[in-house]
This record gives sequence, structure tokens and C-alpha cells, in this order.
Amino acid sequence: MPEDWGTYRAVGTNKRLLGVIGVATLVLGVAIGLVIGGGGGGGGGGGAGGDLGAIAQARGLTPEDQAHALEQFVPGGKYDEYIMFASGGQSGQVFVIGMPSMRILKMIAVFTPEPWQGYGYGADWGDSILAKGSPPGEDLTWGDTHHPALSETGGDYDGRWLYINDRANGRMAMIDLRDFRTKQILAVPNISTSHGGMFVTPNSEYVHVSSKFPEPWPAGSYADLSQYQEKYRGASAWLKIDPNTGQIDLQNSFEIELPPYSQDLADAGKNGSYGWGFIGSFNTEMATGGINEGGQPLEAGASRNNFDYLHAINWQKAEQVVKAGKYEVMNGIKVIRLQTAIDEGLIYLIPEPKSPHGIDVSPDGDYLVVGGKLDPHVTIYSFKKVQQAIANKDFEGKDPFGINILKFDSVVAGQVEVGAGPLHTQFDSQGHGYTSLFLESAVAKFTLGEDVVKTGEKPFTLVDKIPVHYNIGHLAITEGDTVSPDDKYLVALNKWSIDRYAPVGPLHPQNFQLIDLKNGKGPMEMIADMPIGVGEPHYVQIIKADKLKAWEVYPAGTDALTMQKSQYATELGQERVERRGNTVEVWGTAIRSHFNPDVIRVKQGDRVILHITNAEQTRDATHGFAISNYNVQASLEPGETANFDFVADKAGAFNFYCTEFCSALHLEMSGWLLVEPAAAAAAAP
Amino acid sequence: MPEDWGTYRAVGTNKRLLGVIGVATLVLGVAIGLVIGGGGGGGGGGGAGGDLGAIAQARGLTPEDQAHALEQFVPGGKYDEYIMFASGGQSGQVFVIGMPSMRILKMIAVFTPEPWQGYGYGADWGDSILAKGSPPGEDLTWGDTHHPALSETGGDYDGRWLYINDRANGRMAMIDLRDFRTKQILAVPNISTSHGGMFVTPNSEYVHVSSKFPEPWPAGSYADLSQYQEKYRGASAWLKIDPNTGQIDLQNSFEIELPPYSQDLADAGKNGSYGWGFIGSFNTEMATGGINEGGQPLEAGASRNNFDYLHAINWQKAEQVVKAGKYEVMNGIKVIRLQTAIDEGLIYLIPEPKSPHGIDVSPDGDYLVVGGKLDPHVTIYSFKKVQQAIANKDFEGKDPFGINILKFDSVVAGQVEVGAGPLHTQFDSQGHGYTSLFLESAVAKFTLGEDVVKTGEKPFTLVDKIPVHYNIGHLAITEGDTVSPDDKYLVALNKWSIDRYAPVGPLHPQNFQLIDLKNGKGPMEMIADMPIGVGEPHYVQIIKADKLKAWEVYPAGTDALTMQKSQYATELGQERVERRGNTVEVWGTAIRSHFNPDVIRVKQGDRVILHITNAEQTRDATHGFAISNYNVQASLEPGETANFDFVADKAGAFNFYCTEFCSALHLEMSGWLLVEPAAAAAAAP
Repeated sequence: MPEDWGTYRAVGTNKRLLGVIGVATLVLGVAIGLVIGGGGGGGGGGGAGGDLGAIAQARGLTPEDQAHALEQFVPGGKYDEYIMFASGGQSGQVFVIGMPSMRILKMIAVFTPEPWQGYGYGADWGDSILAKGSPPGEDLTWGDTHHPALSETGGDYDGRWLYINDRANGRMAMIDLRDFRTKQILAVPNISTSHGGMFVTPNSEYVHVSSKFPEPWPAGSYADLSQYQEKYRGASAWLKIDPNTGQIDLQNSFEIELPPYSQDLADAGKNGSYGWGFIGSFNTEMATGGINEGGQPLEAGASRNNFDYLHAINWQKAEQVVKAGKYEVMNGIKVIRLQTAIDEGLIYLIPEPKSPHGIDVSPDGDYLVVGGKLDPHVTIYSFKKVQQAIANKDFEGKDPFGINILKFDSVVAGQVEVGAGPLHTQFDSQGHGYTSLFLESAVAKFTLGEDVVKTGEKPFTLVDKIPVHYNIGHLAITEGDTVSPDDKYLVALNKWSIDRYAPVGPLHPQNFQLIDLKNGKGPMEMIADMPIGVGEPHYVQIIKADKLKAWEVYPAGTDALTMQKSQYATELGQERVERRGNTVEVWGTAIRSHFNPDVIRVKQGDRVILHITNAEQTRDATHGFAISNYNVQASLEPGETANFDFVADKAGAFNFYCTEFCSALHLEMSGWLLVEPAAAAAAAP
Repeated sequence: MPEDWGTYRAVGTNKRLLGVIGVATLVLGVAIGLVIGGGGGGGGGGGAGGDLGAIAQARGLTPEDQAHALEQFVPGGKYDEYIMFASGGQSGQVFVIGMPSMRILKMIAVFTPEPWQGYGYGADWGDSILAKGSPPGEDLTWGDTHHPALSETGGDYDGRWLYINDRANGRMAMIDLRDFRTKQILAVPNISTSHGGMFVTPNSEYVHVSSKFPEPWPAGSYADLSQYQEKYRGASAWLKIDPNTGQIDLQNSFEIELPPYSQDLADAGKNGSYGWGFIGSFNTEMATGGINEGGQPLEAGASRNNFDYLHAINWQKAEQVVKAGKYEVMNGIKVIRLQTAIDEGLIYLIPEPKSPHGIDVSPDGDYLVVGGKLDPHVTIYSFKKVQQAIANKDFEGKDPFGINILKFDSVVAGQVEVGAGPLHTQFDSQGHGYTSLFLESAVAKFTLGEDVVKTGEKPFTLVDKIPVHYNIGHLAITEGDTVSPDDKYLVALNKWSIDRYAPVGPLHPQNFQLIDLKNGKGPMEMIADMPIGVGEPHYVQIIKADKLKAWEVYPAGTDALTMQKSQYATELGQERVERRGNTVEVWGTAIRSHFNPDVIRVKQGDRVILHITNAEQTRDATHGFAISNYNVQASLEPGETANFDFVADKAGAFNFYCTEFCSALHLEMSGWLLVEPAAAAAAAP
């Protein structure tokens, strides 16, 4: 074998020798030879800029296609103008998507363990959040994320926190938008399923979560379906946001008991209706299905009535009722019982036609728009009329639980025939509403009342419609749920993609479609399709990208749970291993391209406590930490200190390694967990 | 409350009443009002086709940007030309990405439970695969997917199966490309970590997996690191593919014992080198780190030698050796011991400079291209020369384990100085190699030997280079690992994105970059960036989309595990519930918009067995099945029968529901699992 590697350069045709790159240099590996350039151009050849027509012809692009390409494309290195936070549905996660490019920038692990982020695979950050986030006695490892809600200040998104509910298990989670990591999961007491009842109040006073299906009350008790009306109850939960951490302060939260209807979509009052919340409902019939027991399918039983009830709740007044002590504590939360809520004027019902689904409040706060799945109209209520009707006691009766029902005629401002299957509505700043039409697969644009229409169009009139592909559920406008929507883009969240993408098996992607709103003034224009094959998103909120102030690295030794310096933060050169009885505790570091310590010797059955600090402060210099066959995997961001605590129950020589491609010698960034067998030690002669 | 909902149409300005859409119609809900259109255009307004310049100006696009937009954009409803299968790194999954649009079409759950697909959340498909896929006594719930390998026929991708290895735990998985679902996870015996050693042989005879770090042999024994050279061993596993199912037939598989080096990237011989496999290695120094014990960091200790060894293995000859019975069975697999492999001429070593990483075989099979991380050249070996050297016994000695080492001079065809940190090489059909340069953040294009260069360029010469952003690991060309690459696109798999995207917290997306290869004849051109924020992909393979023949629905009553009709398939009207002692067994169906049965009554502690058939045969008509607070979630594709088996250990009224937005009355598609408390029954007076 050759002794001098350099001499072998004589072989081949390129003989000039740059020289071997020194190992020592690479051991530190800090950005050697890193080319940081601008723009996405570059490359070896002259751009085809002068010959766009030829490219379009070669690729079969029509003039319209070409326009759409130019409207969507974000050149390499340029940033997207908006960031969309999409619920991930049954994936249990949240997706962060750039707009208009519609590129997925990140998946945020929320309710489901996720090893890329090291969430729920041995590091205390994820393990502790997931453990605390299960109801007592349960061990939930997924969720069904439905309705993301960004924190707000003065009714505008402020870019601090994101909340999301778990439709499957009645939980909610809080994500810190400094590091885009989940910081809290809360099993909301007395609620076991929640659908669309999530919103944040305009100054982030509360996150609201309501129940989807009622459950026997108090939570945890049992009652047969035959006692549905008597024993089952829903709840409207007002979860207090800690203004410093964004986490939920259960002590200062409260619930309002609700009838056993299916409370559905909800929205916060704003501007004129500030201090109120609105919750749609269906199944005021209180049907319970039972096809196999001679009953009617729920979808028929729950659709018998022509009207269900929009619940209008005065949360500011409810705060005072709680302050006055008129509550019971049930499963750790203050609960205003339904009779108290009625007596104190906290809750009113408004008839809403026909199998209602979406309820959305206009930016000025006056218009409450309801879509009824089986009604071709949207029904538009005026909050001013609601206030008057309450003041005048303009009731048409009470529901079976004694709640006053406002007279429909007294509170409706208008109805617009939009098409088949209207679900959800968003708004622009020009006085338009945009409603998704599930059955018609379209988005309808209509005008609100004349006091807010800025375009000279006739009020309460359908003014535009655009087909979508296909079966649209929610839709969202840039900054859409705020008091000041941006009128730039609308995203149609279509549930079926059918013929839009090459087949990838019987489970198909859903289809997000990007629509140009032309500043709210022209007809809508469809720009592009985006497949969603990573979950079944239900809803999104879209924020101006420059409102987000994400951290690029952590300050040295940060604990991601507290965002403070960890008591276990370890500096380079301060690494150590301590053994105390059957416990081995390690204070370690990670830096390109090694862990220290890189050999950890324990005995089978020992408790192993690891503290590992990523000693990097360079953006992107993440190190992973995985132990082979021990189901341990963490992502250690620059500056982060993570902690692990496990029993070394399997004997053997287990390689641990960095799971992020961190440096040229990344593959060498590994070490050994040596677990000496208990039996061998005992059996030694 | 109004009795006649229709009369309320008098309110508002749009008074024409389409009429209420009948509930009965919606109960079946089959594609009512579904608009199936072509193209992505449509919309309310005239396209901006005539005014491309104005759009470009408004969006700040340079002429070069505009060209790139047109080169990447795939209009709505048009299909991507190529499909890329990307490993998902520590996510444990595989990503399916369309090209050139770079849109994620699907995530395929492989090693990590994933609830959107209902993989590992109570349905037998995922639960059984994950359970069988853990080594004995372990319960692994993640993997580190590294190197996808598509099945091949005649050296070309055939679109049938996809294989992927688990770097963390020495496992591999098989995905069926009829339904894009994982069908097998295998814990490869005697291997506990594997990195780049995965490839499929040209006629899908074998999947090859080799060890990354050696482990004490036989697997499961214990040896201290002080016995590394003596007791630790690697392995090259040749896993036999069942030609009908694509699954691994362990009985007809074999392994070859390897020295305790770190075997690394690998590739199959093809055409001229068919029947052989090639595995790079590093750490032939057999360093074991131990910084905290006074040792040298592994990245230094493993980089001392100027050469490590490329392992050349004759698998066709090895088959004969196995047939002749010259093996030992170890942990359920036939193992050719190292001495036998040497004696039988199955293995030779070839010196490869300096901390080698990639090894890639050219389409004709003759050129073996090695990138050394610490060497600015690629070294190009000729397989013809390798054969001659073996025939001539042109050895320069033996390694410490007695393996013959071929003389470097005798086997090298050329070296090309490409730049800093060369890792991996891909090929086009014009006689070029394309090598990723990690340290330089670039892709270098060079010529191979004159017998394959079709462009008139000088052989073994650097001909083009393009910067990438940043720290490129692998790269891949369309149909790149076949005997006939398409010279259309190259994807740079960059590990750091740095300034390319808006910050989304300290864990940043990686950056895939799409490069136009100009049919292999012009300079490379950078087209677009794609963020990857869902895992840390390592490698991809890219197949022509029309080679995939995915199923759009399952035949009625299909079991996804067997792809055959399930014995539990249930037709509409044949639903039933049986109780046998403490077991309740349910044969149920799902169809828009209900489950049948929709009320299931059990007692706490009962075993519950559910068989649910999705009775749909319409594309996209997936139903989910989740039980609140029971951690059960499945995705039932049209035609699929899934099975669940659990103990109802928690009492209460648990809502179950469809988790896919399937129809207008999807929210009503739910039922109740009533678990009567054992205590209540016992305690009743």
C-alpha cells in the first residue's frame, strides 16, 4: 500500500494538486469554503431570460400559465411575503408554508411524537409536554389538529404565539413563535372532543375552545345515550393566556356549561362586537344515531330541523360573574353553570338555517356570517341588531334548557344566495365576504352591508365566483381573521384532489389552491395548486412574514422548555461524568465533529442521566443525538441544552451519533454507550 | 322559533331560493355538484397573459428569474414529469416529491408511527409491521431513513417497490408502489447501524444493506472497545427479494462477514460489472474515540491514514458459495465467514484516498467513482482493470484480516481535481460525472474516459461547476442510478439553508435545489430552491412518473397487508356485532356519511375486535376512523378493510368519528363507543 498519497496524483489527466485539506481544520469545521451568495441565479450558463417564449413553448405553457408562473415564483434566496400556519389534521402537527410560493418551510410537532425534531424520543422537552398533555390515566400519542389561532394585539396578528386544538381528544396546544416549538399541551377539563371552537380574543386575553360532542357531566362520569338530554353537556372554555409566556393559566380560566348540542365553528367578536364570542351549532335535535339499534343515521337525525342555534356569549360579562364567585370548580376549572349563564345574561341563541357550519365575524365586528351546509345562502346577522334585540327582549321563546332565543327577523341584516354547500367565510378590507362552497366546489364573493362596502357595489350581492378543485372546506385570506385583512391572496383548502396530481396510491393528497384577490377590487384569479400529502389540514391562518421574529439560534445553554439558561448547561472543557450508586450522570457537549464524552460506560440496569449542550452558536449548526436501538433521538439546536433520563436495560455496545449532517466529518461524530451485561458480571468465574 | 324555514327568504337582498338541498341526497353524497374541470386556469378574470412584463416588474423578477419561473411551474391539473423519492432522515419516513414543481405529493410512513395514514395507531396494518420490525426485545418507534433504492429490471427503475434503510437501528423497509404503503420492516440480523450501504441489484435479485459501525459478534454478545479489532465485526447483507411480493425472503438471503471498519456508501455493479457490489469504508484505523478517557476524537483518529479501502464483492460467486453450504447460520441468516470469503475470492480491497465517502458506478458499469472528503479529487477506477488485477494477483498486500489489497496504480483510470470536499457522484448519458462538493458548496461536472464521452470533450477533465446553497450532501439526477440516466434535472441536497428562507426558529429547513442539466450538453443552470422542513433527507432517487402504476382505490374489501380480499370484508347491509364472553366483535362499514354500527356497547375490560370496511369505490373517498381518548386512528382508503383489537379499559362515552372530510355531512359521521364502567355495574344496589 502506498505510503505517500500525494505521489498518486500522477495518475489521470488532472495533475495539479490542491493539497490535502487538513484534518485539524476540519475538526472544527467552521464554514470552510462556504459560499454565501445572493439570489437564485448564478450557475454556469447565461440565463434564458431573453428567450421566455421558447421555454414556454417547450414546456407547453399557455400565456395564462406563464402569468401564473410569474405570480407564484419566489426566486432562490428571496423570502415569501406571507407565512401560512396550517393545521395538519390527523397528523397531529402544524405546517408552516410560505406564500405565494406554497413551499412547506417546516412541520411543527404538536400532538404526535416526531423524531426529526426530537419530540417525544427521550429528550425532556417533548417527553414532558406530551406526558402532561394527556388526560389523567391516558397516554395519547396523536391528535387531530383543526383550527390554528395566532395571538393578537388590537385585533391584529402579533406573531408571538400560535394555538391549536385537538379535535379527537378535546385538547389544545401552544406554540412559541420565537423557536417554533410546542411549549404546552392542555387537556381541557370537561371537554373530550373539540372541533371548530378555537379562537383567540383580540388582545389575546383568552383562547376559546368549545366541545364538539357533549359528554356525560361531570367529565369522567358515565351515562347511557338514553340520558343524552338529561346528563350530557357541552362547554365553552375561556382559557386565560399568560401575557408573558403565552401559556394557559388554568387558575384564571373558566368554562360555561352548554346544552348537549354539537357546538361547532366559532369566532371572536371584534371592534363593535368586542367582548363577545359566537359559536355555531348543529344537532339541536339531540339525535344519537344508533343505526344498528333501529335508529336513524345521525346525519339524517341531526338535520331534521330547519334551524339550529348560533350561541352568542358575553365573555367580558362572564369574567365579572366569575369574579363574583358564581361558579363551581369541576375537574380543576371554574364552571359557570348554564342556569347562572342564562340568569346573568351571558348567553343567547340566534336561529341559524340549515345545518349551519361556519360562523365568521367581519373585520368591523358588526356582521356575523353563517353558512348552512344545506342552504344555498349565507345568512348575515348584524351585531347591532343583536344588541338591540337583547335590550328589547325581542325573544321568540326559549330552548329546552331555558336559553332565550332571539327573533330571527330582528337580527338578520341580509342573505345572499351564494351556491351549493356554503361553509366558511373570510373578508377583505373592501367590504366583501368570500364563502367556500363545498358542494359546488367554488368560492363565492359577495358584498356586505353598504356601511362597509368601499367599491360602489350593491350591498348583499353576489359579485364573483371561481371554481376550485375540489370539495373546498375552509378558505383563508392573508391576515384574514384580523380587524385589517390584507386583500392579497386567498387559499382554498380543497379536500379532494381527484385528477390534479399523478396517483400516489389510494390515499391522495389534498389540494390547496392559491387565488389572487387583486386587492379586493377585481375578479379572483386562480394561480396555482399545492398538494398536501402530509396530513389533512382543516384551517390555516396567514400572517405577514415580517411580523415573525424567530430566533435563529438559542443563547448558549438554553432550555427550550423555559427559554432560560439551563441549570445543566455545560461549556466546552467542563464536561464530566459522575456515578452515584446505580445512577450515571453526564454533563456533555456537542460541537463539530464530536460529542464529549464519546464513550459512556454503564452497567445493565443503571439509570442514565444525560445533559448535552450544543456548543455551537452558528445558524444551521444543529446536532442530532441518537442512540442506536435505544429509541432515543433529539435535535439539539445551536445553544440548546437537552436532558435525557433512562434506564440502560439492554446490554451491548450501542453506537450514538449525530443525526444532522453537520460537517464534512459528520459521519465520524459518534460515540459508544457501553452497557456491560449484568449477567456477565455476575456469572464471571 | 319559525316553523317554515323557507319563509325567511324574504330577508335580505337575494330573494331567489334555490331550495333546500335534500338530506337524503346528501346522505349518499356521491359527488354532487362536483365540478371536474381541466387545467389550472379558469377563474373569474381574463388572464394576465398579455402583460407578463408588468407582473414581473411588480414582483421584482429579473429576466433570469422569469425564465426559472417558466422552467419550474407546473400548471394546476398538469402532472409533474418525474417523481422523486426522498429519504426523510430522522423523521423515519419517505417523501414523494414531484419534479420540476418540487411539490411534496405524499409522506409515506415507514419507521415512525404516523396517524394521518393511520400507521401504528390501532389498525393491524401498521401495528403489525412496526411490531415485527423491531429487533427481539425492543420496541422501536422511529428510524433514520437514509438511502432509498427503487426496484430495477435490466438496470432500469421499474416502479414496483421502494426499499429504504434505517441508519439508527440497522433495519430496512419495503414499500409497495401500488399503494405507496410500507409492507415490511426487517431488523437485519447481525447489523445494528447501517448508513449508505443500500442498493438494489440490477434485476432486483437482492437489496444490499451493510453495517455502518461494527458491533460485537455474534450480534447480541458483549465486548469492550478494547477488543474492537478482535471481537467487533461488520457485515454485508444480501437480502433476497421475493419476485412476486417484493418482500425480503430471509431464508434465501445471506451475509458476508466484514472487518470492523466503518463500511459506508455502496453501489451495485451494472452492465460490465454486473454481479459485483462495491462498498466504501473509513476508519480502517479502527479508532474508537474516547475523548473523555484520554483518547483522540474519532474524526481525527479515523482520518489518520491516507487511504481506506473500497470493498469489491462478487455476489454472484457468493451465491454459489452459499449453495455449496460454506456458511454458518447466525441469528437466522446464512453468514459467509470472512476467511471463507477471502479463500473463495469473494472480496478484495482497493485503496481509496482520503476519508472516502461516496462510491458510484457509471451507467456502463466500468467506472467506479470515489469522492474523498479530504481530497480535492475524485478518483476513478476501471472495473476492467480491477478484473485484470484480480486475475493477475496484482496485490500490494493484505489488510490485518487477510483480505487481498489490489494495487492502486493497477486499477485507477483517472483522477479529476473537482474542488473541496467531494462526496457523491451521479452520471448522465453523455459521459459526464457530477460530484457534490460539500466544503465548496458546489456541483462539479467532469468527463469520464474517452470510451463513453459523447460530447467531444477531453476525458477526465473538469468541464463545469455551479455553486449551491449550502453544504451539499448527496445529489441526484433524473433516473440517475440506472443504466440509462435521463439528462434532464439534477437535484442538489443541501444540508444548510442559512439565508435562503425566512427564519422559522433555530431548526431550519434544508434546501433542495433544482438544476437544469440541458440534456447533458450545456452548462448547468440553477432553477429553484425548495425548503425541506419535515426531516433531514439524505438521498433521493428520481423516476419517470409514467413508470409508476399506483392504484387509485382498492378492490372492495382489500387487506392492505396482503393486497388480497380480507376474510373480514363486510358488505353494506351485512354489518353485525357478536359477543362471545368478554369479547365483542364487530363487522362494520363506512360510507358517506355514517358508520354502521354507529353505537357499540361494551363493558369495561371487554376485548373489542373491530373490522371496518370502507364501502366506497370512488377515488378520494377515504374515511378515517378515530376513537376519542382511545388513541385509535386509522385511514380507511376506498375498498379497504381494516382490523382493530384492543381492550376497553377506560369507562365512558367515547365518540368515534370519521377523520377525513368526506362529504357535506362529514361532521355528522360519528358514533359512540359506550364503555359501561365495571365498578358501576358491580356497585349497583
